[in-house]
Amino acid sequence: MTTILHGNIIHAPSFGALETVPNGYLILEDGVLQTVSPVLPEQYAACPVTDYGDALIMPSFADLHLHAPQYPMLGMGMDLPLLDWLDTYTFRTEARFEDLDYARRVYRRLARDLITSGTTRVSAFASRHTDATLILMEELEKAGVTGYVGKVNMDRNAGPSQEETAESLSETLRWLENCRFTNIRPILTPRFTPACTDGLMESLGKLAAERDLPVQSHLSENTGEIAWVKELHPDCPQYWESYHKYGLWKDRTLMAHCVHSDRREQEAMASSGVWAVHCAASNVNLCSGTAPVRELIERGVRVALGSDIAGGDQLAMNRVAVMSIRASKIKQIETGKPFLTVPEAYYLASTAGHLYFGGGAGFQPGHKLHAVVVDDSAFPEPTRPLTLSERFERSIYLMEKQHIKAVYSEGINRL
Amino acid sequence: MTTILHGNIIHAPSFGALETVPNGYLILEDGVLQTVSPVLPEQYAACPVTDYGDALIMPSFADLHLHAPQYPMLGMGMDLPLLDWLDTYTFRTEARFEDLDYARRVYRRLARDLITSGTTRVSAFASRHTDATLILMEELEKAGVTGYVGKVNMDRNAGPSQEETAESLSETLRWLENCRFTNIRPILTPRFTPACTDGLMESLGKLAAERDLPVQSHLSENTGEIAWVKELHPDCPQYWESYHKYGLWKDRTLMAHCVHSDRREQEAMASSGVWAVHCAASNVNLCSGTAPVRELIERGVRVALGSDIAGGDQLAMNRVAVMSIRASKIKQIETGKPFLTVPEAYYLASTAGHLYFGGGAGFQPGHKLHAVVVDDSAFPEPTRPLTLSERFERSIYLMEKQHIKAVYSEGINRL
Repeated sequence: MTTILHGNIIHAPSFGALETVPNGYLILEDGVLQTVSPVLPEQYAACPVTDYGDALIMPSFADLHLHAPQYPMLGMGMDLPLLDWLDTYTFRTEARFEDLDYARRVYRRLARDLITSGTTRVSAFASRHTDATLILMEELEKAGVTGYVGKVNMDRNAGPSQEETAESLSETLRWLENCRFTNIRPILTPRFTPACTDGLMESLGKLAAERDLPVQSHLSENTGEIAWVKELHPDCPQYWESYHKYGLWKDRTLMAHCVHSDRREQEAMASSGVWAVHCAASNVNLCSGTAPVRELIERGVRVALGSDIAGGDQLAMNRVAVMSIRASKIKQIETGKPFLTVPEAYYLASTAGHLYFGGGAGFQPGHKLHAVVVDDSAFPEPTRPLTLSERFERSIYLMEKQHIKAVYSEGINRL
Repeated sequence: MTTILHGNIIHAPSFGALETVPNGYLILEDGVLQTVSPVLPEQYAACPVTDYGDALIMPSFADLHLHAPQYPMLGMGMDLPLLDWLDTYTFRTEARFEDLDYARRVYRRLARDLITSGTTRVSAFASRHTDATLILMEELEKAGVTGYVGKVNMDRNAGPSQEETAESLSETLRWLENCRFTNIRPILTPRFTPACTDGLMESLGKLAAERDLPVQSHLSENTGEIAWVKELHPDCPQYWESYHKYGLWKDRTLMAHCVHSDRREQEAMASSGVWAVHCAASNVNLCSGTAPVRELIERGVRVALGSDIAGGDQLAMNRVAVMSIRASKIKQIETGKPFLTVPEAYYLASTAGHLYFGGGAGFQPGHKLHAVVVDDSAFPEPTRPLTLSERFERSIYLMEKQHIKAVYSEGINRL
């Protein structure tokens, strides 16, 4: 089946690049992009065209770190210190996901809000609850969100709802047996080193190797946590080595935050193929600091962005991209390292995440379409006609749900 | 005429305080608040009640620094260094306001967007154009926005549309003669020291004294600007003294930014009754830094918030409040000074601004009502019933136009 979309095409095929095709065409066969063309190729002249007129067609967003069961506490507790925030809000909120009806309602809403915000790929933490985790996967799949979801493993220092080690493992196996989805797959998710015993970490590392499963966790978010890991693992000179020791530090492992990762830790990421997920809003909200994104990229670390709800208060990834720009400007004032430009931040919020999941670099032929269509005609009237790259920049800053006219995931409009 | 509003009442009568009256009543006579009551007083039992049910009724927002003619460039040029940004966008955009039809369209839209975002008081910069400035005042008044507007004075270093000194003065007089509005009044607006000759500054200082007019301008936004002022006024040890010298540094003068104001400059503000307008988003966007808000307040300087569009990219003052919180968290990481809590930031975005214009401290009886009604029922379902202060916090973080159900300005709902 041929699908043809017409509009102003904008994408970021590589870090820092922005390519535009005014009044262009995307030609799809069974949802797979064939061509990006400035004119309608003659052989398609008779095909119907989905005409988005003067709207912008851009690759959709990917959110590589979010805590799905924290969605109910979005925008709350932000005045509390980290440990009080965890006790008062996070652990109690997550514990509620034993109630599967509640889980269903929250996850259905979250899945829909991801799509309506233009996010089509995620790597999400669920809670420790196997059945609620499966419900999250089901709701994401139904809504058209693709990517990874992890049942959280946590058998120490994790509040009222922590698991026994054996239960954590047996439930992980039960969860994996029941993961039967097309576009949502499992990712092993030890919460973070202080919340997992050595025995649990070791077993998860083995499981990751045996079943070739990806891994996600947290790294070097704040200084107290780093000191804590050092106490728990005196044999590990650095935080990352507590994951490495158990086989969890490997190609495509996602590590959220990396705020305090120094040169050695960054080089360990680059050489092992570990990805950093930058969560700028969350890191400021929780007074953790600002990750050295430019440095990570210069050292060859793959970086993508995460909303990190509900440490982050914004689900919409264009706002997360803007927060990353702001954080990088603060970093520039401090260190002189150049800030992230709008095309660079958009690349990290979009292309980088799609590449993580094996998607295309921007609108690269051969991949199923993941795209968002933005109608910017309701933004304030400019003084002169704008270039496409100006309209792109303005959309990243100003876009809200009501400006999004279509969201393609795996080649299908899910809005 | 008696008006009675029912809902959950929340206000910040003093810095850091948050008072809540669940299921309470606001009683107005001719728009003037008489009582805030937890029950409907008996003498009003027969009066009709405007029932906002479970919604939140909070004082509206005040935006004490915005450049109205920069609204068309919102969210653009943010990757450029300050001087390129001024040349490529700011001066050219403002020059367009010679066209009065264009000015009318942009200003009508801006006035409406202020109301629908919950902002009912402003102190705005217009452009240098007298007639367009009068149109801005007319459109704000029609929409129900109250406060001050200034025709900008700039007779050097201000791009293609700068004025001659004599013209700047005669046009200022013509503008003042034609300011015949009820709730929008003139404020003298020398753009900033580098854009005004000594002669112009001197004349404006005399005018301010003769007609008892308030003054607004910019102060210590970035280090290059500070050095420039020093070159232009070698007799002034500090930036603020270039205003002081000409009688522009006086009670209720509004000074935007104050990012680099040190102890001496801060003390000069406190002792003269000069207000600092903190513009967190703009200061980060333009890589200026972060103003020492906590320090300013501790030293007795009155502080309010400004969106500073279009250096700022957000018109909605709840987002500006959130950006102020984020900036203060970054400041805390750097200096240890405690960050702004949500009630504190809300006070600065609301009560502080209302007080500047002679309004009430929160819902203080004796003042015309300025309030916003927020329906938070569409936010994600919480795990348990929330307290009013949690609902308030979540609203400040998550509120968008579609959640605002009424906006009272001078006692009348203008939405």
